[in-house]
Amino acid sequence: MRPSGRKTDQMRKVTFERNVSKHAEGSCVVKFGDTHVLCTASLEEKTPPWLRNSGKGWVTAEYGMLPRATGERMKREAAAGKQGGRTQEIQRLIGRSLRAVVDLTALGEKQITIDCDVLQADGGTRTAAITGAWIALHDCLRWMEARGMVKVEKVLKDHVAAISCGIFASQSVIDLDYLEDSAAETDANFVMTGSGGIVEIQGTAEGKPFTEEEFAGLMALARTGIAELVEMQKQAIA
Amino acid sequence: MRPSGRKTDQMRKVTFERNVSKHAEGSCVVKFGDTHVLCTASLEEKTPPWLRNSGKGWVTAEYGMLPRATGERMKREAAAGKQGGRTQEIQRLIGRSLRAVVDLTALGEKQITIDCDVLQADGGTRTAAITGAWIALHDCLRWMEARGMVKVEKVLKDHVAAISCGIFASQSVIDLDYLEDSAAETDANFVMTGSGGIVEIQGTAEGKPFTEEEFAGLMALARTGIAELVEMQKQAIA
Amino acid sequence: MRPSGRKTDQMRKVTFERNVSKHAEGSCVVKFGDTHVLCTASLEEKTPPWLRNSGKGWVTAEYGMLPRATGERMKREAAAGKQGGRTQEIQRLIGRSLRAVVDLTALGEKQITIDCDVLQADGGTRTAAITGAWIALHDCLRWMEARGMVKVEKVLKDHVAAISCGIFASQSVIDLDYLEDSAAETDANFVMTGSGGIVEIQGTAEGKPFTEEEFAGLMALARTGIAELVEMQKQAIA
Amino acid sequence: MRPSGRKTDQMRKVTFERNVSKHAEGSCVVKFGDTHVLCTASLEEKTPPWLRNSGKGWVTAEYGMLPRATGERMKREAAAGKQGGRTQEIQRLIGRSLRAVVDLTALGEKQITIDCDVLQADGGTRTAAITGAWIALHDCLRWMEARGMVKVEKVLKDHVAAISCGIFASQSVIDLDYLEDSAAETDANFVMTGSGGIVEIQGTAEGKPFTEEEFAGLMALARTGIAELVEMQKQAIA
Amino acid sequence: MRPSGRKTDQMRKVTFERNVSKHAEGSCVVKFGDTHVLCTASLEEKTPPWLRNSGKGWVTAEYGMLPRATGERMKREAAAGKQGGRTQEIQRLIGRSLRAVVDLTALGEKQITIDCDVLQADGGTRTAAITGAWIALHDCLRWMEARGMVKVEKVLKDHVAAISCGIFASQSVIDLDYLEDSAAETDANFVMTGSGGIVEIQGTAEGKPFTEEEFAGLMALARTGIAELVEMQKQAIA
Amino acid sequence: MRPSGRKTDQMRKVTFERNVSKHAEGSCVVKFGDTHVLCTASLEEKTPPWLRNSGKGWVTAEYGMLPRATGERMKREAAAGKQGGRTQEIQRLIGRSLRAVVDLTALGEKQITIDCDVLQADGGTRTAAITGAWIALHDCLRWMEARGMVKVEKVLKDHVAAISCGIFASQSVIDLDYLEDSAAETDANFVMTGSGGIVEIQGTAEGKPFTEEEFAGLMALARTGIAELVEMQKQAIA
Repeated sequence: MRPSGRKTDQMRKVTFERNVSKHAEGSCVVKFGDTHVLCTASLEEKTPPWLRNSGKGWVTAEYGMLPRATGERMKREAAAGKQGGRTQEIQRLIGRSLRAVVDLTALGEKQITIDCDVLQADGGTRTAAITGAWIALHDCLRWMEARGMVKVEKVLKDHVAAISCGIFASQSVIDLDYLEDSAAETDANFVMTGSGGIVEIQGTAEGKPFTEEEFAGLMALARTGIAELVEMQKQAIA
Repeated sequence: MRPSGRKTDQMRKVTFERNVSKHAEGSCVVKFGDTHVLCTASLEEKTPPWLRNSGKGWVTAEYGMLPRATGERMKREAAAGKQGGRTQEIQRLIGRSLRAVVDLTALGEKQITIDCDVLQADGGTRTAAITGAWIALHDCLRWMEARGMVKVEKVLKDHVAAISCGIFASQSVIDLDYLEDSAAETDANFVMTGSGGIVEIQGTAEGKPFTEEEFAGLMALARTGIAELVEMQKQAIA
Repeated sequence: MRPSGRKTDQMRKVTFERNVSKHAEGSCVVKFGDTHVLCTASLEEKTPPWLRNSGKGWVTAEYGMLPRATGERMKREAAAGKQGGRTQEIQRLIGRSLRAVVDLTALGEKQITIDCDVLQADGGTRTAAITGAWIALHDCLRWMEARGMVKVEKVLKDHVAAISCGIFASQSVIDLDYLEDSAAETDANFVMTGSGGIVEIQGTAEGKPFTEEEFAGLMALARTGIAELVEMQKQAIA
Repeated sequence: MRPSGRKTDQMRKVTFERNVSKHAEGSCVVKFGDTHVLCTASLEEKTPPWLRNSGKGWVTAEYGMLPRATGERMKREAAAGKQGGRTQEIQRLIGRSLRAVVDLTALGEKQITIDCDVLQADGGTRTAAITGAWIALHDCLRWMEARGMVKVEKVLKDHVAAISCGIFASQSVIDLDYLEDSAAETDANFVMTGSGGIVEIQGTAEGKPFTEEEFAGLMALARTGIAELVEMQKQAIA
Repeated sequence: MRPSGRKTDQMRKVTFERNVSKHAEGSCVVKFGDTHVLCTASLEEKTPPWLRNSGKGWVTAEYGMLPRATGERMKREAAAGKQGGRTQEIQRLIGRSLRAVVDLTALGEKQITIDCDVLQADGGTRTAAITGAWIALHDCLRWMEARGMVKVEKVLKDHVAAISCGIFASQSVIDLDYLEDSAAETDANFVMTGSGGIVEIQGTAEGKPFTEEEFAGLMALARTGIAELVEMQKQAIA
Repeated sequence: MRPSGRKTDQMRKVTFERNVSKHAEGSCVVKFGDTHVLCTASLEEKTPPWLRNSGKGWVTAEYGMLPRATGERMKREAAAGKQGGRTQEIQRLIGRSLRAVVDLTALGEKQITIDCDVLQADGGTRTAAITGAWIALHDCLRWMEARGMVKVEKVLKDHVAAISCGIFASQSVIDLDYLEDSAAETDANFVMTGSGGIVEIQGTAEGKPFTEEEFAGLMALARTGIAELVEMQKQAIA
């Protein structure tokens, strides 16, 4: 029995609120239950140094958590003077996930930075961030298309979304909340495209090692969940 | 004529949305027009080292701006590795303003940290932050009172709120938005209590120096505006 | 009764010692009683990036305190690895104050940096720094004038000086020393020009909030004091 | 055809040189072909703060690359003033992998730090590091056992080893060297125990997304390779 | 011919101004010609962690240069966020030099920190700093003796002073100023005690290597110069 | 009697293993007994900013110690976020020593960085590093010569090597190991060229000051030792 009373294959309520920022070229607040992430896309007319004169653009991401997004207040990273290892891991993952569905040459020599800031955390912040970041990126590209800068269909080749699955109380469950996450034996994050291709898999045994069969079960759950998320993304941008 | 069409003594629409955080002991999103600040209050059962065994508690604040809260994306302070001078100035101001209406002995050896994170900026983020921080602090104290830890009336001696005033296009105006702020000849921030006492005054000539008469005009505007803000705080917590 | 025996409207003895540095284009040691600040002006043939090709120059300031300028030794900021919030607040204030009386276009694409280093502190370091920085800036401009680079009268439009006032033992007093400063109920800093314009006002209630009347009293004290300081600046450069 | 002429399921030559450090309680240089990692285990009689008085110990890892371990010299992280995101990701992975086979309660309130420093890199540094770190950890525990501090069999529950697999030139290959790694379409790292349990899976699409079938192929390769590595570990400590 | 017209064995005019700080337990401004260093001694009733409960005290030093102490303004180390290698080298040297003449057990569990801040630089700042630091340390110990805390003669076993010598224009000269220092072929710093013992020798070939005979010549010059400096220290504290 | 049983003028066994790095243009592992340092030379086609368009190149060095190179594990400098004072002193010394035998104009506008990383420490790491760095530098220049970039004989004017000497148990001894180093009364490092010129001398009294005669004794020991080291370098590159 899950603490939330959800079924093993039942995700939390997922919503996207678009155009939440007056300034950003694309933005949304994505909610996976009590996990709320603000995603903004910022267009800059330049690329990183290593792409200068390559004709290619870049899509990157930064991730942050507000100090009291969590049950206990965490030290503000800006005050601590550096981003922790977990933050860096996550923002690198978000960037890679988005670039997997972007044609950087079609984008041209521009950079889009997606900022994913967790307003409230209840497990699964990185998967919510990726799923919402796609919406912000899409809206930024629409903004550019409206100004004749790109063709969205040329740049954005597919959807990308992510979900966590894990083994909690000996059962495979989808979309773990904080209570489940902190007690899970195995924790896995999956990033997939709209057409079902896999972009990233991260599986970690928190307690005892897991088997291939268990992992296959988690992936099956993820596949169904991500298909649902992609459907919701489609409705959100319709 | 103000860019927004407001009258010289007309503040933007101000709203407080309380209890926006599942985790924080007190929280609100305060909006002064398009300036939106998330304020959370976090209670810790400890004081800073210099107050150990003094019987006194502490109220402090931290301030941050999401990278794309502004028209152009700013570098994330956590990535830059330090908080800028402006950030530090503002968070020191918020902390002082709140402490001016708190009886630290009545609070006891506890620390309340108010995090003020600007989700969207359109001028006046520090004054919105102070005004909203008071709500978050109040709600945190109510939370403590419900658990028998303090008497709110003993700890929180008064309201505190803040507003900016300035000379824009040769006219004294209240609650400057970004367009006005960036073109103002004089910019002043006032922090006052519910009973009309002054807690902080900061006045800066951006262009040519200002006169005592001009400054008195700004203060008169501020006095009326802050009285309105305090009234709104009262309604918000009613 | 003030600890120093001074009258409420009596400043400490103020002196300027010019040309104290063999290297700097302008320099002075300013003393407000036991508060001693070394101010040096350094000319550089470049501007900050945001002013390139604008035809404008820049005047900026940095502030520091020697570790044992104070009663108890403070940690050296270079060893701590960052400048504290107070340091940043003060150096931003000094820079703004000086720029208020400088015509940056008449200066041309050059940068003058005023370093204000507190050799000994006894309250009022920021106001002494501003008052002395003006002398260093003036002397730097004279140095430039002697080389045909600028006309001092075109660049330096007015004097600027600063003084602190506060409410100590229920009385409004001028130019607080450390003993008064640490016990003051209200503390205010005023920066004004030679012609009486106000450049900066910062007023803070340390204990209970203050009234508009009290603040007006502090401003009146400041106005007289700053007029005296400007007179002393005139004599110093005569 | 692989650049090295290896077969798709052929790992590079793997060797362990034990006891390479005069000082460390356990140490080895592990080589996967031209990838050489020095692993040292350091015992400290203390635990991290969050485990004080818990009766539990801790095993952690740090990872570094000498500046010229790579084809082009990289900036020294100590000189840069921080560890990069990749470094932090890898050292967190090594620590988690080792803790998966350690009984922290049987270890008692001690900390073992495994330093993995890459002397020369040619792809697969993290998998070589994990595989060698196990040897260093084992030898440290033997050192402790010889002094009556622990029973190795109680603390170290199993072997752990790691290998990378990927899709290179449309073929699934094991143990990618740098040339393959930088051109691979998909890159995956697997960490498994001696009894075949999975500890960590990380799969990343570098170019186009991959399929479940492709991933299953990589995992099959990894399973065989890790079994070989565990066998080599057994011989190394025999 | 030396740029200053001095003879090869002629030091610059050396002066000590004692008691320049209202706050420090000991202080002096030492001048070697145009090189001016403010030395303050700060007493703290604690020792570094590694000496706790050892019965021993500690003497340490910090060194800094004001940004415009030099011909061209240097970046402020506090703003740069770290102390450079040269600064660290020098402050370690000053500390070692002073401890060579201090009986740390006779000092007892206290720490004296000598801050050496260069107000104006014209070569030889480290040797001036050591020579002046001894005066500040001495005066701090006298301050302590007056309060019954130590016996100066027990703690301070001897004088210590320092001088630079070098080969300039093929001649061995003493006490190089900046012009000589920047053109010297060989540069050496000597730290010696009042009784003629050597505490530190640092010799560096700036251009071509030097011979033992040349080095012996520099040491002979240094020996005479340091004897003079010690004599001046004796007069200064008389 | 020395702890190692060596005679007072007997160095430890010294070996050079060349070409230890697949990537670096020059490399060696130098061993002075149990002190092992990996030296790699990296060629870059650029110079530091201050040498641009000067026609001159640059040779510099960086130094690091692996965390468990020592008897007790030291904090990793990359994790600490800065290089300590000792590290900076040593790497500056290595760079100066190498440049003393290099004709930077003959090198041309290129930079060679020598990384000296201590794999295992037992005293004398800086002298081993200098001695081994010369080999790595030489081999890098040979690599360049093979590509027609330089003439080795034009660039590398002489050998350079280094040794420590000290007074241990009242006797002058050469090449101190850790046990001797930590108990020595005087510790000196000498850097000399193949033709006997002195490049650097650093002598420090750890306990009581030393005499000129004692220092002369140390230098005599060093001269013989360095001559031997240069002979070994010659054999190593033969």
